[in-house]
Amino acid sequence: MKDEKPRDLVIALRGWEIAPWIERFAKMLPDRQVLALDQVTDPDRIAYAISWKHPPGSLTRFARLKAVFSLGAGVDHILSDPKLPDVPVLRIVDPDLTGRMSEYIVLHCLMHLRQQRLYDRQQRDHVWGDDRFQPAAGAIRVGIMGMGELGQDAARKLMAIGFQVQGWGRSAKNRAGISMHHGAAGLTDFLAMTDILVVLLPLTPQTHGLINRALLQGLARDGALGGPVLINAGRGGLQVEADILACLADGSLKAATLDVFETEPLPSSSLLWDHPAVTVTPHNAAMSEPAAICRQIADQIRAHERGEPFVNRVERGRGY
Amino acid sequence: MKDEKPRDLVIALRGWEIAPWIERFAKMLPDRQVLALDQVTDPDRIAYAISWKHPPGSLTRFARLKAVFSLGAGVDHILSDPKLPDVPVLRIVDPDLTGRMSEYIVLHCLMHLRQQRLYDRQQRDHVWGDDRFQPAAGAIRVGIMGMGELGQDAARKLMAIGFQVQGWGRSAKNRAGISMHHGAAGLTDFLAMTDILVVLLPLTPQTHGLINRALLQGLARDGALGGPVLINAGRGGLQVEADILACLADGSLKAATLDVFETEPLPSSSLLWDHPAVTVTPHNAAMSEPAAICRQIADQIRAHERGEPFVNRVERGRGY
Repeated sequence: MKDEKPRDLVIALRGWEIAPWIERFAKMLPDRQVLALDQVTDPDRIAYAISWKHPPGSLTRFARLKAVFSLGAGVDHILSDPKLPDVPVLRIVDPDLTGRMSEYIVLHCLMHLRQQRLYDRQQRDHVWGDDRFQPAAGAIRVGIMGMGELGQDAARKLMAIGFQVQGWGRSAKNRAGISMHHGAAGLTDFLAMTDILVVLLPLTPQTHGLINRALLQGLARDGALGGPVLINAGRGGLQVEADILACLADGSLKAATLDVFETEPLPSSSLLWDHPAVTVTPHNAAMSEPAAICRQIADQIRAHERGEPFVNRVERGRGY
Repeated sequence: MKDEKPRDLVIALRGWEIAPWIERFAKMLPDRQVLALDQVTDPDRIAYAISWKHPPGSLTRFARLKAVFSLGAGVDHILSDPKLPDVPVLRIVDPDLTGRMSEYIVLHCLMHLRQQRLYDRQQRDHVWGDDRFQPAAGAIRVGIMGMGELGQDAARKLMAIGFQVQGWGRSAKNRAGISMHHGAAGLTDFLAMTDILVVLLPLTPQTHGLINRALLQGLARDGALGGPVLINAGRGGLQVEADILACLADGSLKAATLDVFETEPLPSSSLLWDHPAVTVTPHNAAMSEPAAICRQIADQIRAHERGEPFVNRVERGRGY
């Protein structure tokens, strides 16, 4: 038995309930064991780890591990483990998830454009407002930081609605039909022409804390919304929440929609909850269907065992 | 002087402030008089009436009138005057207005899809909800009643976001790429396949009160939103508000977004204001910029005086 190839799965997650995930994977891969970390008695039988924020160091005991799968598109929660085994790290690429993220981005750009929060207040007060005229989408410049699959799809859909869209990325990649800025040198110009800043960057050591006071104060002040707006649907670690609150207080930021936070779930004591210019959503801008995630991971495992290479593999040096 | 051709304008409106309109038209047509109804001393000099809900009968004294312009896309407020002079009635067709209407439709379809009101409540209560998963746009069937310029543009943009879209119209017109139903015979099937009903119909004697209990109860009950949703951005006279409230109460309607009302401004006593499943906006789904309206009317007047035919002329028998 000792030389039998490892085939089993361990699921290591924090913050989500584990039982439904074990059940789903067991159903999809009925010919092998699917275990939680504390259920594993023979670590050498484990070939695949499925992680969502696994406890750092908890994967070292699996000496015959072949791959670590993330349960989502993000992998920062895996790469931040200093004792991560040196095996391929694979992320979920879900076309459905791309569409969901664009729904969220378009929804919240339109809520700001169309002053939905003003009408919410007026409705609460039974007020039929006089201030009914608003700019058209074509008067608003949306700037997207992070122009991978998600950013490009959001850009195309925002342009279909009529917004002006520009992108900013790390490298000088061309994105067909979208005005692009890149690198540190392009950031100042990009911000100065942005009325609504949409953040879709991955979390890496380079992007950690990037959305701070200095960056927010570089946004356009002359736009048709009367002040710049931030939408962060990337990662909470990208933003400095104290700086966002300070910029809202001094008027250099008009409003913010945040799906992600420095600490999640957002603590009940956070000042963001009650701020009239802040919209909070519970990190669900783009959630994959659990069944679709399991299917993609199971397909990768079966393909790998047929001798095919892994896809959607993370470049560790780059961080995504 | 008696045989001089009439060239002046009278502005007849209710509900809006008149002074800014007189000023705008006077600036754009500096070679003629622009007067309010009660400022006219020589009715025979008036060639053009500009109306927004003009007092019925108030245009009869202008014997040499050449045309009545509506200040908006709707003309029901003009055609409802039993003493309307028998001259061409012209409406505003503003490409910008089409885009604005689509912004509104896409925004409110997405608010329902993405459960924005649930997250609003959770934010108010500092709750990071567990109920974070939601259907994708592709699982939702939007049905649009009224497939003119506005309906077709909204349909295209909703499809770009990923929604399933179908249209219903009075006549059997083909609308490229959009699944169409028509007439009374097609209505039952159309409603039974509709999760979000978007109403963009003109108000005519045939459409008055169309959005009633019987119609709402014909909507799909098996959709991914857990119940059908109404969005009326057409005219308030299309809807029976008592029926909407009754359908919300008995669960045959899940939610409603209303931009228009039987009485506008919506009376402070209306039960719609405080209903947790109702979103009220102050009839501003699609407002033209005043300058664009004035320009379009001034251009028509000058073209007419050069001998060119009027455009955007209303068919009185049809009502729009």
